[in-house]
Amino acid sequence: MQVRKAVITAAAPDQNRLPLQQLVDASGDEKTALQLIIEETVAAGIEEICLVIKPGDREAYQSAAGGLLRSLNFVEQPESAGYADAILQAKSFVADEPFLHLVGDHLYVSAVDAPCAKQLVEVANEFECSVSAVESTRENNLPYFGIVSGPHVPRRERLYEIERVVEKPTPTYAEQELVTPGLRVGHYLGFFGMHVLTPEIIPLLEQVRDQASTAGASAPKPSLSDAASLMPSRGRYLAYEIHGSRYNLGVKYGLLKAQLAIGLSGIDREQILTEMVDLLSHRLEAKSV
Amino acid sequence: MQVRKAVITAAAPDQNRLPLQQLVDASGDEKTALQLIIEETVAAGIEEICLVIKPGDREAYQSAAGGLLRSLNFVEQPESAGYADAILQAKSFVADEPFLHLVGDHLYVSAVDAPCAKQLVEVANEFECSVSAVESTRENNLPYFGIVSGPHVPRRERLYEIERVVEKPTPTYAEQELVTPGLRVGHYLGFFGMHVLTPEIIPLLEQVRDQASTAGASAPKPSLSDAASLMPSRGRYLAYEIHGSRYNLGVKYGLLKAQLAIGLSGIDREQILTEMVDLLSHRLEAKSV
Repeated sequence: MQVRKAVITAAAPDQNRLPLQQLVDASGDEKTALQLIIEETVAAGIEEICLVIKPGDREAYQSAAGGLLRSLNFVEQPESAGYADAILQAKSFVADEPFLHLVGDHLYVSAVDAPCAKQLVEVANEFECSVSAVESTRENNLPYFGIVSGPHVPRRERLYEIERVVEKPTPTYAEQELVTPGLRVGHYLGFFGMHVLTPEIIPLLEQVRDQASTAGASAPKPSLSDAASLMPSRGRYLAYEIHGSRYNLGVKYGLLKAQLAIGLSGIDREQILTEMVDLLSHRLEAKSV
Repeated sequence: MQVRKAVITAAAPDQNRLPLQQLVDASGDEKTALQLIIEETVAAGIEEICLVIKPGDREAYQSAAGGLLRSLNFVEQPESAGYADAILQAKSFVADEPFLHLVGDHLYVSAVDAPCAKQLVEVANEFECSVSAVESTRENNLPYFGIVSGPHVPRRERLYEIERVVEKPTPTYAEQELVTPGLRVGHYLGFFGMHVLTPEIIPLLEQVRDQASTAGASAPKPSLSDAASLMPSRGRYLAYEIHGSRYNLGVKYGLLKAQLAIGLSGIDREQILTEMVDLLSHRLEAKSV
């Protein structure tokens, strides 16, 4: 299997400005968040990208994308109908190929040479099935993530056979149903915002979308987790614990933390450290006057 | 004199995305840089704002401005003809009133209760003349700023009678011509990106613009400093050393430094400090593995 397509979702109404934010990358170059996300996919061997955007955002995104990739496709999500519906906008782009899926409001800093998406794609290419990137997540963060559980893949580090997927479980439910052996107590495997999905996800996304529309407007908008929870019964579905960290730009101070983490991992590390110390001493002084 | 109008310039082609960047303010609320700049003017008593923008940017700016001020006017600078020309686009808005002028790519953190622009406007209202905000600037920063010099106003702290204005002087020139008594050795009064200007600046801006257009296309685009250098011979022109710091978003890591400074000056100070320490220890650890 060779993953060569990527779908990036950036259509959520309150998050759609985040990919347009400006940062400095690990090489010290000024980039938009969108450029960093595109570079993450390109480094993983991706050749064609589909961006799912909010109607009206195309021009701003085109300009923020830079000239990196010739094959950048845009599809609009006509209305804000949730995460499953957003990925489904890329159905014809995906066609019958596996694809890397990233969210448009996360940035990644790898702890090893290979970037995070490349680590994930290599596992998917080897095992020829859907693989979700996960990280060990503390119990107090359960309300924010999709959580998976299942046994270790024998003789492979960091790789798990997913048996269960639950979106934002309660701590009690997680403790009874979602414990993954080998993790620290009170820790679970949480989605990392990055997946390789085979085309088999498409009918499952359609199924949860159709069920939700039957249930009426008051039903919660179906998420990727709802569709992913149907995958283990259809075939092999793995979770890979990435060597690296993810930074959600959508939380308070998310951009600040992402920029500090990227800066401290890159060539301007010494400069950033010096400026942090200068600023701290200056500000602490100012307060104590 | 009562300053109630403000002109904010944000039309420079490489800087026009900066006011759209997202930050968290000192109260912990998510804001665009433009909202923070508008709030700075409103806190100084400004009732009407004119934003000088690049053609095509109006919609993005309107959306980034939030709903704070009813009276937000936009004028476009038709071509990128420099700083003096940008301010001149607001000529009919200014009419015959004094105005506060801010640049769209700077943010400010006051060291006292009154915000920086309010400190400046209060001095201008009292002395009824143009007043430029300045800060003590080290010699090595001369290439980046307009520099002023002149004697202290007797019995007033931080207030100077401007006699000379020079844009980006050389250290040698500054040492011979621009020393202001009372500053530390090797320090000069540098523009802070914030001015109160009386309508008398308009014909001076027109004069330097017309001189430059006679000089031909290869002449440097006239700056505000060029016009301001003509002011001391026309009447009183003061410089006020603001209690506070300015953060230029247009330099590398400018957004990061601004966000850290704002965060450390506000209610989330403890959280920011904790997260900086966490990130530092985590990143230092990651590097030493």
